[in-house]
Amino acid sequence: MVIVTFLSDFGRGPYAGICRGVIKSVAPRCEIIDLTHDIPAFDVRAGALALAESLPHMPVGVHLAIVDPGVGTSRRPVAIAVQRGDRLVGPDNGLFSLAWDELGGVRGAWEIRNTAWWRHPVAATFHGRDIFAPAAGRLAAGSPPAEAGPSIPKESLARLHLPEPAFGPGRIEAQILAFDAFGSALLNVRGAPGLAAGQMVQVTLGDRPPIMVRFVSAFGDVSPGEPCLLVDSSGWLHLAINLGSAREALRLERDMAVLLETGGQR
Amino acid sequence: MVIVTFLSDFGRGPYAGICRGVIKSVAPRCEIIDLTHDIPAFDVRAGALALAESLPHMPVGVHLAIVDPGVGTSRRPVAIAVQRGDRLVGPDNGLFSLAWDELGGVRGAWEIRNTAWWRHPVAATFHGRDIFAPAAGRLAAGSPPAEAGPSIPKESLARLHLPEPAFGPGRIEAQILAFDAFGSALLNVRGAPGLAAGQMVQVTLGDRPPIMVRFVSAFGDVSPGEPCLLVDSSGWLHLAINLGSAREALRLERDMAVLLETGGQR
Amino acid sequence: MVIVTFLSDFGRGPYAGICRGVIKSVAPRCEIIDLTHDIPAFDVRAGALALAESLPHMPVGVHLAIVDPGVGTSRRPVAIAVQRGDRLVGPDNGLFSLAWDELGGVRGAWEIRNTAWWRHPVAATFHGRDIFAPAAGRLAAGSPPAEAGPSIPKESLARLHLPEPAFGPGRIEAQILAFDAFGSALLNVRGAPGLAAGQMVQVTLGDRPPIMVRFVSAFGDVSPGEPCLLVDSSGWLHLAINLGSAREALRLERDMAVLLETGGQR
Repeated sequence: MVIVTFLSDFGRGPYAGICRGVIKSVAPRCEIIDLTHDIPAFDVRAGALALAESLPHMPVGVHLAIVDPGVGTSRRPVAIAVQRGDRLVGPDNGLFSLAWDELGGVRGAWEIRNTAWWRHPVAATFHGRDIFAPAAGRLAAGSPPAEAGPSIPKESLARLHLPEPAFGPGRIEAQILAFDAFGSALLNVRGAPGLAAGQMVQVTLGDRPPIMVRFVSAFGDVSPGEPCLLVDSSGWLHLAINLGSAREALRLERDMAVLLETGGQR
Repeated sequence: MVIVTFLSDFGRGPYAGICRGVIKSVAPRCEIIDLTHDIPAFDVRAGALALAESLPHMPVGVHLAIVDPGVGTSRRPVAIAVQRGDRLVGPDNGLFSLAWDELGGVRGAWEIRNTAWWRHPVAATFHGRDIFAPAAGRLAAGSPPAEAGPSIPKESLARLHLPEPAFGPGRIEAQILAFDAFGSALLNVRGAPGLAAGQMVQVTLGDRPPIMVRFVSAFGDVSPGEPCLLVDSSGWLHLAINLGSAREALRLERDMAVLLETGGQR
Repeated sequence: MVIVTFLSDFGRGPYAGICRGVIKSVAPRCEIIDLTHDIPAFDVRAGALALAESLPHMPVGVHLAIVDPGVGTSRRPVAIAVQRGDRLVGPDNGLFSLAWDELGGVRGAWEIRNTAWWRHPVAATFHGRDIFAPAAGRLAAGSPPAEAGPSIPKESLARLHLPEPAFGPGRIEAQILAFDAFGSALLNVRGAPGLAAGQMVQVTLGDRPPIMVRFVSAFGDVSPGEPCLLVDSSGWLHLAINLGSAREALRLERDMAVLLETGGQR
């Protein structure tokens, strides 16, 4: 039984369901695991972060992901083989570029140009239904990815570049990359460099007055409703609120600048 | 392995999950594909449009759909056989009436009155759990639809009538039928009669001042944030915004009048 | 084929999908039924009510539930065996305590302390991925619950205590426990003691002016948009609106006091 995982920004409505039907029509014996379809619309970065967080925990299989602001343009539909043995299917827009190293790196890539793999007529607005889902089905049914179309150099695959934080003595200039389902803000900082559990950190959101926030190792280390900084389950520094939504309570926004300063070093 | 697809307006909460459990209890070997459970509450038209868009892409199977503002009243629960070989299960309120022609037309219909097919006691507020899901399970387990209850004339099945657009020289008086997950408005116009790719169209929403909108074949043909008209993947004319939500940006509402005028013909 | 049902407050985002992948990695032959992942964040009571409503309709199997405001604290992760033959997996915070009697009562309970059952390293913020989902997978793959860790007395399991209504002559002092997906308010009253179908009831919400609401047996017994009281499909008294959301229309909130008075008895 081949596993097909599926992530998209299709949200409400039947688009994800239509793709599920197409996959099962092509590969009746596969099993589909939905990762999420609630990636913010067109937010390739949020999709890429979710894939990097999720795919290492998935069984080896076919991974379909569709966050595709360029649908109907010249961006390539691709099938990618990774060292762990998985196949990735989606638009060549960087969506998988944070995840493939977690799966051992890219072994090969092919543009999905074999029209026998497509559903016809191909709609310019729904490559999920007409190109990506059928291709995921083909791969799940055992077709080799090289049958999808011409091989492409792996160096030519689009990559996503996350903004880098700036580190100074006792300070980190960070920003908000995305939010999790509970409203915690994922900062562009891996781990917690220079921070010790229990330490108070001065946090400046954009140009607002600074607030003091404790760096902790678990939510329970602060009171309900209290903000905290912690390293989440996938290794990113998060600005969160215990039993609440930091996004709502602190009126956070994607890309907002977050300056972290530790008093001891100022 | 029989496929059961499932669409509803059950939204958040466990109602859809309860129905999934009931189906699997009756038909342990079937496989359930969720189409969507985010149909706007009680909006039979939106459900019917989603089914017409989705079912042609589903494997042949049992299709359960529940958008049922009349639950607990005298509207009939029905099982419908269509030419393609599928069985449809749901309330007789027009929900399937836009879809069955896509599956070759109705071959027969039965009222689900066999109480051995029901879960008891039947709650007046949740026929999904007590009548529809068990019936879908029975059909998935191989029972013939005629066992569900008395045959009913297919002409007696409720049909949904979509409002018709009015066509004049260089003008279409349309209206908004529904929205897709990205906030694009589905107009009651099939295709794009009289429109040529790239053409500017004067669009009047209700009694607001008119705006100029380009008719295109793909979102990428307009700039990000720019409105456009295009024919979507299921053949309906859409008023949309590239990389945005037309519903939010243009404050669109269901049933809103949309007047399309092409300058060249005025 | 073992069934694993899954309920959480993980909402949008990939957390539920990650857990699904973990379960399938441990127990490739199980089948996952999602109950819902839209329990309001951290609302153990809403999760417990949903489980009590849902589990009786599920096939016998493994039931994973995660609404876990105490993640990373000392609350115990537990596996519970019930008389019907099911296994329950989740935090020991009362989440299953409204459901287990529906499944015949608790037969035994074990703390999940066997580290061979965990995914390592265990994140302090995501026991779903690292403790609960792997344990559900083990049980689905056939491991006995006693392998999870030390047996614990069933009397020591956390229980949820719902607020009791106060009954007086012709009056019930109730409150709102939760909402269903359509915005109906679930009151802390089983059935409809002292109410007869068709009867008018004076309803006082908090300290607002009273309104008159009809007690009915089905939504169709009142006009569209009209409020009503009815016993829902799981036996609780609901304050609802036919074809609308009582929560929105009446601006209802969780825990709001609801005084019900029947004129005939005042």
